[in-house]
Amino acid sequence: MRTRFDKQLEQLHVELIKMGSLCEQAITLAAQALDEPEPEVVKKVAAMEGEIDEKEREIENICMRLLLQQQPVARDLRIISAALKMISDLERIGDQAADIADLAPYIVRSSISSKVQIHNMAAATIRMVTLSVDAFVKNDLELAGSVVISDDIVDDLFNKVKGELLELIQKRNADPRAALDILMAAKYFERIGDHAVNVAEWVQYSITGIHQSDEHHLDAEKE
Amino acid sequence: MRTRFDKQLEQLHVELIKMGSLCEQAITLAAQALDEPEPEVVKKVAAMEGEIDEKEREIENICMRLLLQQQPVARDLRIISAALKMISDLERIGDQAADIADLAPYIVRSSISSKVQIHNMAAATIRMVTLSVDAFVKNDLELAGSVVISDDIVDDLFNKVKGELLELIQKRNADPRAALDILMAAKYFERIGDHAVNVAEWVQYSITGIHQSDEHHLDAEKE
Repeated sequence: MRTRFDKQLEQLHVELIKMGSLCEQAITLAAQALDEPEPEVVKKVAAMEGEIDEKEREIENICMRLLLQQQPVARDLRIISAALKMISDLERIGDQAADIADLAPYIVRSSISSKVQIHNMAAATIRMVTLSVDAFVKNDLELAGSVVISDDIVDDLFNKVKGELLELIQKRNADPRAALDILMAAKYFERIGDHAVNVAEWVQYSITGIHQSDEHHLDAEKE
Repeated sequence: MRTRFDKQLEQLHVELIKMGSLCEQAITLAAQALDEPEPEVVKKVAAMEGEIDEKEREIENICMRLLLQQQPVARDLRIISAALKMISDLERIGDQAADIADLAPYIVRSSISSKVQIHNMAAATIRMVTLSVDAFVKNDLELAGSVVISDDIVDDLFNKVKGELLELIQKRNADPRAALDILMAAKYFERIGDHAVNVAEWVQYSITGIHQSDEHHLDAEKE
């Protein structure tokens, strides 16, 4: 049974990596869409969101089978329950990338995306998503911690963007509609960062049995 | 075993109702906070968010025990997996209520909350949350469907609020900073509506074995 568990766990890792890289691609395309007026890009992100949802369900099935067939306890149970939580964060990242892409056509018309630090937000969040999934697969507590810390960078960038937009509005240097839309896009990027942190915290939990927000998390007492 | 399963399922229902009502209270307080300058309210919502997180973990434990001890299949398995998904949506609703409350102090200073339909958004989303949890407990497919449909109302209200804010900004009838903050608050309410829809869709799945977004959902093929 043990080797079977390891095989299924290996499959879980592979699918999680795929789901993570789909999320990274979706965010990258969504950020592109803010500068390019191509409706193709928006469609691509929407399609990718669908793939991400599909992947979530595949991984859910793997996890449920592992739970029901292998009856894991302690560390193994934590890995599965952490994976189940991670995929719901990754799925939301896909949603948010699609939300950003949906706003893009309105934003592109104004040249506002070049006037604020939105692309720094995109770069920072993509990095967080990559590292958080890597941390799970590599079982790397330090890497997970680095993602949790880097959330401040994204939050600071959001406040910068908000301030930049406020100034543009006050000085009437931007179409207010585009300003509101890009603020929304910035918020979505910030949320993506939050979800990456959630993923990283679930990695920490799967390794240590302790969740950031709780000293007595899901079956930690089984240890 | 069957009766034991039913007992645990009953407990699951009770805890879900509690979690749902905590969410409703949190949203209600957050909406209040937009008009009242009381820092107490903001603190209350933050405390409630903590309670909601705690409740999520309690319910997670109930679900994991049900999965591991009872080895449910088909409908029973769907109920547990749906509950596991629902609580992550309810937990996010708590986060969003706290996010709204955090914005409140900045919004209250301007009288802007009375100039836009934000409170209609609050009322509509609270109703959606209540009905979605009721639908799960009462096992009511029709009720779940009504929540899914009513999402349009919240989305329309968000666009109304956005338009109202845009006009206020263009006519210089509002502090732009407060306008940006209340737009964020409106977005959080809209998200709460989305999460209530997710809950309702998981109720539909638990009853029918078919998830809105997927014809071959988690173990539906076991039917």
